[in-house]
This record gives sequence, structure tokens and C-alpha cells, in this order.
Amino acid sequence: MSIKIGLLGMGTVGTGVVQILTDPSGRHPLLQEIEIVRIGVRDATKPRSVGLDPQTFTTDLASIVNDPSIQIIVEVMGGLEPARELILQAIGNNKHIVTANKALLARHGEEIFELAKRHQVYVMLEASVGGGIPIVNVLKQFLGANRLTGILGIINGTTNYILSRMHQEGGNFSEILADAQRLGYAEADPTADIDGFDACDKIAILASIAFSERIPLSEVSREGIRHVSTTEIATASRLGYVIKLIARAQLVSQGIEIGVYPMLIPVEHPLAAIGGVTNAIAISGEPIGEVVFAGPGAGQGATASAVVADLINVCALLSSPGHPLLTCSHSGYAQVVAPRENKFYARFTTLDQPGVIGELGTIFGRYSVSLETVFQQNRSGDIAQVIVITHRVREIDFWQSVAKIKELPTLQEVGAILRVL
Amino acid sequence: MSIKIGLLGMGTVGTGVVQILTDPSGRHPLLQEIEIVRIGVRDATKPRSVGLDPQTFTTDLASIVNDPSIQIIVEVMGGLEPARELILQAIGNNKHIVTANKALLARHGEEIFELAKRHQVYVMLEASVGGGIPIVNVLKQFLGANRLTGILGIINGTTNYILSRMHQEGGNFSEILADAQRLGYAEADPTADIDGFDACDKIAILASIAFSERIPLSEVSREGIRHVSTTEIATASRLGYVIKLIARAQLVSQGIEIGVYPMLIPVEHPLAAIGGVTNAIAISGEPIGEVVFAGPGAGQGATASAVVADLINVCALLSSPGHPLLTCSHSGYAQVVAPRENKFYARFTTLDQPGVIGELGTIFGRYSVSLETVFQQNRSGDIAQVIVITHRVREIDFWQSVAKIKELPTLQEVGAILRVL
Repeated sequence: MSIKIGLLGMGTVGTGVVQILTDPSGRHPLLQEIEIVRIGVRDATKPRSVGLDPQTFTTDLASIVNDPSIQIIVEVMGGLEPARELILQAIGNNKHIVTANKALLARHGEEIFELAKRHQVYVMLEASVGGGIPIVNVLKQFLGANRLTGILGIINGTTNYILSRMHQEGGNFSEILADAQRLGYAEADPTADIDGFDACDKIAILASIAFSERIPLSEVSREGIRHVSTTEIATASRLGYVIKLIARAQLVSQGIEIGVYPMLIPVEHPLAAIGGVTNAIAISGEPIGEVVFAGPGAGQGATASAVVADLINVCALLSSPGHPLLTCSHSGYAQVVAPRENKFYARFTTLDQPGVIGELGTIFGRYSVSLETVFQQNRSGDIAQVIVITHRVREIDFWQSVAKIKELPTLQEVGAILRVL
Repeated sequence: MSIKIGLLGMGTVGTGVVQILTDPSGRHPLLQEIEIVRIGVRDATKPRSVGLDPQTFTTDLASIVNDPSIQIIVEVMGGLEPARELILQAIGNNKHIVTANKALLARHGEEIFELAKRHQVYVMLEASVGGGIPIVNVLKQFLGANRLTGILGIINGTTNYILSRMHQEGGNFSEILADAQRLGYAEADPTADIDGFDACDKIAILASIAFSERIPLSEVSREGIRHVSTTEIATASRLGYVIKLIARAQLVSQGIEIGVYPMLIPVEHPLAAIGGVTNAIAISGEPIGEVVFAGPGAGQGATASAVVADLINVCALLSSPGHPLLTCSHSGYAQVVAPRENKFYARFTTLDQPGVIGELGTIFGRYSVSLETVFQQNRSGDIAQVIVITHRVREIDFWQSVAKIKELPTLQEVGAILRVL
């Protein structure tokens, strides 16, 4: 069975999606049943890095959403119009939608989802929040046993990158923003990220799924990070906090409290350690307590992974019965191999004599086990502890060295051997 | 439509599942269609905390798996037999299975899944690994775009609890184990946890899903934590590491390297911060990079959440078309409320005069804003910075105080106001 899809847009995310679909081996077997029929672009003659028939590309986007052979539309063009119009048209033609368009969904979700209900098609939106983190589908499908009470997230990579660097370097906001723009971590017009609009779109989407109610975007509180100064960063650090742009939605007795603000986070909080462009989302509920999901919040591969996950899920439903994502799909046994390389920690109890470290080092060297750290501690009487951390070495070499070391007259005991990550 | 289920077992997890199912309001609407028909127990006369008809309970477990009205069997009795026999019988009767039984699946998965394939039923196993973390279903359904390359996890809560306490307190293994047993974090016979058997079962299950091949349990390397001494804990800390029991599976050119060992983890690694009974699992793949999932790895509520998630998923498939987990299920708008309470950080630039802190404190006090921390820093010339961190206070009280403070003749500027998590 082949499932025919059309793409709207061939920018960073679209290219990532096509790269996955045209190179399916080693990925989910359903991918091999997906056929890219048409891709809508601004310039159909532009050279592309992907190996597709040039005939696949068209500037006539309406022809894609009206093509009767296409079952699923992947919208990765972004922006409000014409994305909205094309998606509505596609739904009207009974096509399923996979989209990464958070701005569109946060503003026109009602119109899109109501039409989708009438036409009994799916609108999948995993890629709209959290990049590669499967947070949307986890909320939809795997936390349904719970009364969800709160969402707390770092869901804008650009601001997290800037704040992380301000903490690390003590640099000021405008300098680091300029550098982030130069490195491609921030847009030329950074307003959507820096002033919290992007995070507002995303928390509105997450909250609407978690709490099963629409969220009017205009009612989401919003504060960006422009006013977070080096003084606050330094003072927060001194007090045991880091400053992060936090998106938060909480169920309270009167309704839902929802907003985006820079907040001081205690350093021991799980979100405090989330640095750079990584995203993380903590979900609280009864009875589960708190679960935290972290991963790349943006980028071609991560976002494409989310788009394709949605595609696989719609394809799985189209090819039921016997849901291929929930059944055991394999039958063979794996080739299990012994660990071949590791980094090791070893503690040797030895006589405290000159030359002991040299003896150990010589034996390790003979077996090509290179050492990162060697030191002696806890000398007591004529006994010493020698601690060794190796570089990444072959397991067989390491264990042969240890066998030889055990024969040393100065060796009293191998105190411990542990692997190092 | 009502979907009829039977439970095998009514211990901690079974009770948690029944508590969720008998109190469905505020959870996923599909729960209201699930009807518990029979529960198999050892002693049907034992008083139960859940409000079910005593007739629901039976000691005749075979009668449950042979009951033609039952569509889904939830196996939460644990152990290899008679769980294996009952599950096979239920599958033979074309019933879907939801199970938390990692030991059974890791040993008899082939037999169970092959029979399930023949009878076209689902065997759902979310609760077998990672407690409330939806890792099994995420691997099955949402990472299929990727070529997965590695799994790295803390998947045994007991050992992580013991190692975390050894790091915090410097206590030795046997004392902390005894205390963990007293507190219910370790079993009377702790072998399955302490010696790594439980983690081996779980990593074998995860690897078989991630890499789509069966893993012979006998080929999973295994090392427990009995030999991790206070010396190693202290030395590791000094070198910038923490010791964790790590379950790891990696795709290498010759096959799959898979095992469980105590390992030194660099403190900056995302798994290093996972303390107590929390579980965390990092999945690596191309193109996604790395995603990390963390949450309660055990406990009644968390495990029941996973069991019920599986139940919801099977029910959703039984009640298709129009997959109720993937469509937009809500139509109303949420009641959005302004934030009512928060903890605040404020920095005031003031004249450096005696009594300034007193003035600020008096105003805050008048509006019932109680202060956690007040201090002055960076005096330069006749200007000082006063930093205030409040307790959790009403937003309206805080903002009114700030308005009053702005009127103080000594106040030069409100330098910054941020919320504190």
C-alpha cells in the first residue's frame, strides 16, 4: 500500500522531512509506504539538495491541496497566510494535515479543528511545540489517566541560548543577541522569540491539549527577556537561582493561569540545568506526579523527526486494522555483542613504595590502555590507594592489564573497577 | 459504548488502576466507557479500599481470561507463573493484554508476542519500564522517523535511591539498603534490584523496541551495586562524577552492546541530576539527536497512570473510526485567569541613606507582602541597590506595594522585577 502525500514548503524543516522520507532504511518500516507526490515551493527551478524528480516541485500550491490522489498534506511553509487558506482547503477536500505551524494553530486553531472534525480528518501538530520532543502526542495519548494540573516549560530555544550564555559569560543581552543572530540561533527580527510571542503560541497549544479547552491567545500573559540585565543574572546566581524564560500554565480553582515570563529558577530544579537551545517541559498531574521531557527544541533534524512521527501515526491509522505502531513488529533476535570499548575507573590498594605508579602505568601502556588521570590518596602506614581513570580503551586490553597488575608484588587488592560514561 | 475489562491482581498497581477507573472525572473521557467486570485475587473476601461490588472479585483467575464478555485483560499480578499461562490463554481467546510484567516479557516475550500476532490482539507494556514515563509508547510511536542508536537510562529506582543517599550522606551501602527496606524503597529480598536483574529486564525490553529485534536476556551484561563502596562514591565526587546504575544499549557495527553497570557519570550530564527513585531515559538517534524523559519510575500512581494509558489506547482503537486520541476533543474556551500569587524578585536603586530598607519593608508589610530576603549590594557613591525576594504573595498586593515604593523620595529606579519559581 502506498500513501501519497504533498508538502507545502521546502525550507529547513521541509528539507529535513524529505531527507528522512527519501532515505528510509533503518527507520520505521511504514516510511517506505509514503510517497511524496508534490511539493509546493516559491521557486520550482531552484536547485535542491534532495534527489527528487524536478517535476515534483510546483509553485501552484492550490493544485496540491486539490489533488485527489493526495491523502495527507504536510504544511511546513509557516506564516499565517496562505498557510491557513491552504490547510482549510485541504481539510475541505478530506485530507489529513500534519503541520509545524504554531503561530497559525494558536490563532486559528478553532476554525481549523472544527472543520477537521466535520470532515473527520486528523490535524497533527507535534512539530509545533518542543521540536523533537514528542510532547504533544504524549499529552494526547499517554497521560490521559491523569488529572493534569500544570505545565512548566522552557520552550523557546533562542531565549534559552541567550540567557544560558549571559549566565556563563556574564555578557550583556544585546551583545549576546547580536552574536546569536550571527550564529543563526536568533532571527534577524528577533521579536517573536525575545519578546515571548513564540513561547506564548506554544504554551497556549500545550495548555489547550492538557486541559481540553481552547486558550484565547490574547489572554496569555507575556513578558520577554529584553529587560533581564547582567545585574539580575549575577544576583540570581549568587542567590542560588538561574534566570530562564518560563512558559507556565496551571489549573487553579477559577480557571487556567497561563503566561510566559523570565523567572528565577532554583538551581536544583530540573529545568535549571537545561542549557542552550534545548527545550524541556515538565507536566504535573494526579496521580503521576511530575514527568519531564527534554530534547532539541528546534533544528532541521529534530523538527523533521516530529513531523515524520505524525506522518507515521496517520499512516498507521490509514493502514489499520492491526495498528502497526502498537503491535510487535519484529521477529528476529538481535546480534548481541560484548562491550568493546569503555572508559574505566579503577582503585588499587598498593604498598606505598616509590615506583608503584610507574609499574601500573607501564603495564597499562604495554596493553595500549592510555590513562587520563592517575593519583594516589589516603596513604596510611605503608599502604596507598592509587586511582586511575583511563581514556576510552578496548575492554580486552583493560582487563588484560588488570590481570597483569594483580600479579604485582606491591599490589594488595583491586579496590574497585567501574565504568565511566 | 462500554468496553469490558478484567484485572488479574489487585496489589499496589491494581489498586491504583481501579482508583483511577472508578474516579474518572477530569481525566480522559474514554475512561468513562471502561467497565471493570472481574478482578482476580488470592483472597476474594479480603476488605478492599475501593468501592466495587464484592461480586467483582474472584479467586478463579482462569474464569476471567475465559470470560467471553471481557475484551481487555490487565495483568498486574506479577511473577512468571501463572501470569504467563493466563496471558497466553487470554490471547488465545482474542483478548487484548495490558501488562506491567517486565520479568515475564523479558523472558517469554517471543511466545507472547508471536501468539498475539496470530490472534491480532495488542500486548501493551508501557508500565513494564520507567513507571509513569511513557517511554515504551514514545519509542513505538513517536521516534519512528529516526535511526535510533542508543539508550541510556536510570531505570531502577531502588538502586538510584541508595546511590543518591550514599552520595548525599556518605553512608555505606548496607546501612542505607537496610534503611531503604525499612522505608519501603527496597524489597525484603533486594536481589532483583540491587544486583541489576530488574534493570536488565527493562533495558532488554526497551532495546527490543528501539532496535526492532529480540534481545536474549542471558546476553545482557549485568553488574549490581553491592560493591560500590563509600570510597568510590567520595572519589567520584571529588573527580566531578556521580555513580549511578546505568542501563545502556547501543547499536554498534557488529550488533547491539547492552548491559547494566554502575558507572561514573560526569556531574554536568543530564542523568547525573536524577536523584532518589526518579527514573530517566535518554534516547539517541539520527536526526533527532538526544531526547531525555524523566519521571517517577515506580509507585502506585505513576505505574497505574502507565497501565491506564495503555488501556485508553486500546479502547481508542476499539472505538475507531475517528481515533479519539488524535482528534481535537474539546470545543469550549478556557476560563483564563490572571496570575494571582507568585514569589517575586525585585531590585530597587535607592539613595544610600539609613532607613531605606526599613521604608521598603514597611510598605511591603502594609500590603501583606512578606519578605524572604532583603539585602543591599553595590553601594557606589550615594546610590545603593536593594534586592528583595518575597515569599509567595498575592500579585495585586505586590504591585500595589511597588507603586507606593515608586513614590518614595529615596527611590531612584525600579531596576528589575522578576518572578521566582
